[in-house]
Amino acid sequence: MRILTLLAATALLLPAVPAAAQSLTANAAALRDKALADPTAWNVVESLTTEVGPRPIGSPAMTRARDWGVATLTALGFENVHVEPFTTAAWARGEESAEVVGPWPQKLHILGLGRSAPTPKGGLTAEIVLFRSYQEMLDQPAGALKGRIAVVTQKMMRAQDGAGYGAINAMRTQGPVEAAKRGAVGYLIRSLSTDDTRLPHAGAAQPGGIPAAALSTVDAELLEHMVARGRPVTVKLQMASTFNPKAEAWNVVGEIRGSERPDEVIVLGGHLDSWDPGTGAIDDAAGVAIATASARLAASLPQRPRRTIRVVMWGSEEQTGSGEAYAAAHKDEVGKMVVVGESDLGAGPIWSLSLPKGSADHPAMRAFRASLAPLKVIVAGAPRFGGSDVEDLIKAGAPFVDFNQDASRYFDLHHSADDTLDKIKPEELAQNVAVWTSFLYTVANSDIDFRALAKEAK
Amino acid sequence: MRILTLLAATALLLPAVPAAAQSLTANAAALRDKALADPTAWNVVESLTTEVGPRPIGSPAMTRARDWGVATLTALGFENVHVEPFTTAAWARGEESAEVVGPWPQKLHILGLGRSAPTPKGGLTAEIVLFRSYQEMLDQPAGALKGRIAVVTQKMMRAQDGAGYGAINAMRTQGPVEAAKRGAVGYLIRSLSTDDTRLPHAGAAQPGGIPAAALSTVDAELLEHMVARGRPVTVKLQMASTFNPKAEAWNVVGEIRGSERPDEVIVLGGHLDSWDPGTGAIDDAAGVAIATASARLAASLPQRPRRTIRVVMWGSEEQTGSGEAYAAAHKDEVGKMVVVGESDLGAGPIWSLSLPKGSADHPAMRAFRASLAPLKVIVAGAPRFGGSDVEDLIKAGAPFVDFNQDASRYFDLHHSADDTLDKIKPEELAQNVAVWTSFLYTVANSDIDFRALAKEAK
Repeated sequence: MRILTLLAATALLLPAVPAAAQSLTANAAALRDKALADPTAWNVVESLTTEVGPRPIGSPAMTRARDWGVATLTALGFENVHVEPFTTAAWARGEESAEVVGPWPQKLHILGLGRSAPTPKGGLTAEIVLFRSYQEMLDQPAGALKGRIAVVTQKMMRAQDGAGYGAINAMRTQGPVEAAKRGAVGYLIRSLSTDDTRLPHAGAAQPGGIPAAALSTVDAELLEHMVARGRPVTVKLQMASTFNPKAEAWNVVGEIRGSERPDEVIVLGGHLDSWDPGTGAIDDAAGVAIATASARLAASLPQRPRRTIRVVMWGSEEQTGSGEAYAAAHKDEVGKMVVVGESDLGAGPIWSLSLPKGSADHPAMRAFRASLAPLKVIVAGAPRFGGSDVEDLIKAGAPFVDFNQDASRYFDLHHSADDTLDKIKPEELAQNVAVWTSFLYTVANSDIDFRALAKEAK
Repeated sequence: MRILTLLAATALLLPAVPAAAQSLTANAAALRDKALADPTAWNVVESLTTEVGPRPIGSPAMTRARDWGVATLTALGFENVHVEPFTTAAWARGEESAEVVGPWPQKLHILGLGRSAPTPKGGLTAEIVLFRSYQEMLDQPAGALKGRIAVVTQKMMRAQDGAGYGAINAMRTQGPVEAAKRGAVGYLIRSLSTDDTRLPHAGAAQPGGIPAAALSTVDAELLEHMVARGRPVTVKLQMASTFNPKAEAWNVVGEIRGSERPDEVIVLGGHLDSWDPGTGAIDDAAGVAIATASARLAASLPQRPRRTIRVVMWGSEEQTGSGEAYAAAHKDEVGKMVVVGESDLGAGPIWSLSLPKGSADHPAMRAFRASLAPLKVIVAGAPRFGGSDVEDLIKAGAPFVDFNQDASRYFDLHHSADDTLDKIKPEELAQNVAVWTSFLYTVANSDIDFRALAKEAK
């Protein structure tokens, strides 16, 4: 119902696009169709996942990813291609294992959580105490988990917008600290996953001083079955992670310089780093590819864009640092950023988008919206997030957009060994590129001022 | 169309069930409904996967599985519960790893193939030569693969009856020998899998003198992407497997002794051993559970069965040996085996069944077929396989049945870490038990002679 209503509204608006915007609409529509048939984004994902693969910050692979980024942007005709170095903390996985040692010995499939402490050499063996909800663990008093490995097996729910992840995220990010406060010596969670494979899902946690890892959903359920028998269950956990508080890192940047107002900059990107179990295809080679391909396509008409389009491949999203470093380095430029955005929720199609407050009826945004009609994208309310790497730019006042991808399957794969090229549908990736291309083209070739529109709308 | 026609045929047969068979039908139908609501099979699978887990032949877990089998049959009221020892060759996985070392270094996800040779200490590094079909490799002349690691990436097809597995099986079982004949020093295949997870699928091969392993489907495709770039790709393979030519093994047996003709024996079972990555839930705790629960239910009416029902938990199906040992030990008894069968294609519902030649219109089989009407099971043509562990009994003349399970999803999970309890639907498992219970009941309480019927039908 909602889709039909909004499509009807879009159709009614079409005749109202002013004459000045009509060529914008026509060009945006032409670029949209060009994007739907363009292989650039797919080629970029294929290249990064094949030639670099997993690339956690601080690893040799991440250095190769940096060089790959420079080479790719250069080969695709970007200008001012350069690297902006910074340092950030890098946690690196070492040998890891977990097993039930009694009463029913079995190996468990785990991935250590980022920033968690290693175990003593030879491992850590303790009785587990299992909670089926995170709240149940939080309700334990101080000391209640003394000497135990705390296990939380709450299940993440599937949701089209990925809301299940935000709802349960504290179980991974805060859990190790909360378990340690209550006396636990180790912490295991059911992976934040919507799939049923035996592949655990990695991710970062707040440093908690205790070893912490994610079990595959299968192993979390196995421990539930054991605990239900009423006998004490003992687990041995071994983790040999290392931590570098000042690892080298880089944001990789390329631009298409504006022909009339080059200092007015549209900033978009994805993140170049990834977790290590997969090849970082959906998280976030896809975002890097969508941004890169869209910028190139938006500038592919004979007349170059009037404003500058800048693509940033952020270098440390998973373990944080790249957005902060970028905002700090560009704080004097934020006032000239027309709009910022990040693609970092996979390669599912964009099903709705949130434009900056008060901007939807501006002729440029009408032209953009009109160009989206065949893609059936809903224009929804105000943007809420923007992306981890643009968060600090947004705090500093940059207007931003949310182009919401269908994340129904994203958390089947996210941060696991299953985050690989074969999970991406080329036509869905191209749909993302079509939406972004049309947006970049209309914004870069108009005089839309999102800040002023937001003020007027107050 | 076929389903409708056969159901109609079954319905038409109902009034033709002779008076003598009518109480058989009524009892079989009552037992069918009891089985559909009975938790025994689920509890058996849950117990074996939780308390023993993976149990390859030759491992300490297999010894625990033997004890579990004896305890389970005893607890469920079976008689003559005992262990029949034999020896068989046991291959055991050691540390394994594989990685592309150049030009694009990345780790690969593998599982060594059963009976393949270990690599030299420190591993084996060689350029790969990749074939997209097994035939393409077979077409290479002797010496063509000299010094190379041969890689075959042919894809297994999904099929309801699992036919895709039989069609491609030689790629795993014969491939190492064929690759070695052509000079290869190592052999990698795309897992025989219908899923797209990054979990490789194990399985046995003929001893080939070269290290051989299965790549996950994802990693097979990754190598295809690398090879497509036209540069030599080098892989390092490390496998530290061990081989025991005379490992201890056991078939675990329990009976419900017949009240009138105890020496006439129905033999059915599943196999107790499993591959190591999963917990052996669908392969084959399910079969063990279906056989055990069905036998118990078939004997659950006040009057005990007239013939003996024997459940065998075969002890070495995956690496062979248990069927051979059983047939050798019971060769003098084969003539008294009424019928034999094995459940070893997972826990999907039985969609068709193949009764011994000439038996379908016998009153007992009419009674059985009539009891299946609500389950919508098709009665198809003559049986073709029986099961690995009853193959030698069949060769020796034992009548047999094929109860064909829906294997559409079986090869997503088979021999991989994903072969776990959560993949089984209790209602589908119970459907299997209902079909077998009805069959066991009608055969054990009738005088049907499958051998004589087959002779008459000639």
